[in-house]
Amino acid sequence: MNLDILRNERETRSFDADQVIFQAGEAGDCMYVVLEGQVELSVRGQVLERLGPGGVLGEMALIDREPRSASAITTSDTRLVPIRRDRFDALVQEDPEFSIQLMRVIVGRLRRMDQKI
Amino acid sequence: MNLDILRNERETRSFDADQVIFQAGEAGDCMYVVLEGQVELSVRGQVLERLGPGGVLGEMALIDREPRSASAITTSDTRLVPIRRDRFDALVQEDPEFSIQLMRVIVGRLRRMDQKI
Repeated sequence: MNLDILRNERETRSFDADQVIFQAGEAGDCMYVVLEGQVELSVRGQVLERLGPGGVLGEMALIDREPRSASAITTSDTRLVPIRRDRFDALVQEDPEFSIQLMRVIVGRLRRMDQKI
Repeated sequence: MNLDILRNERETRSFDADQVIFQAGEAGDCMYVVLEGQVELSVRGQVLERLGPGGVLGEMALIDREPRSASAITTSDTRLVPIRRDRFDALVQEDPEFSIQLMRVIVGRLRRMDQKI
């Protein structure tokens, strides 16, 4: 995701390496965009994706209100921009570019999964 | 997708059973919503999903401008609402509910794929 879209977000959260951001199966009310560092997304121990700056995680639980589908763990010192549900809802209402960029992220993931069939 | 969102679309396209709507690998400039009938989405001969009324197909190529990831074939007489790129772009700009419903469709697909890992 283009970090320009987050120009109005003021809060960041910092993690050391090897910290769990969220785990598969948990309820989730926040998505994150990576500002600095690296995050691994995994399902049942299999790494699906490594995210660097601009990478997006946790959006699925905001979109469909289902539990986290994957676990997210930092692999270096990492700084994230949290986007909670109320802010997410506002961005979707006010900024079509946010929505289209989020769709591109999810479609990218889906294409990578389709290639594994 | 809630068909109310398509209340302003005037055009429909009709297909007999066993017709190809699009094939994996083709370029695509149009998504479709099923009004009546049934469509199967498949990748390399494996059926991923059966869509009935309200089902959405072909949205990935509009979102990321990459080739069709799956093939779509009717399995009954089917009527679809086509949404071409210019109309898609307008809906994303003007109707946040269209975007969020589309995100739910894609996230649903991604969750089903994650469960296969």
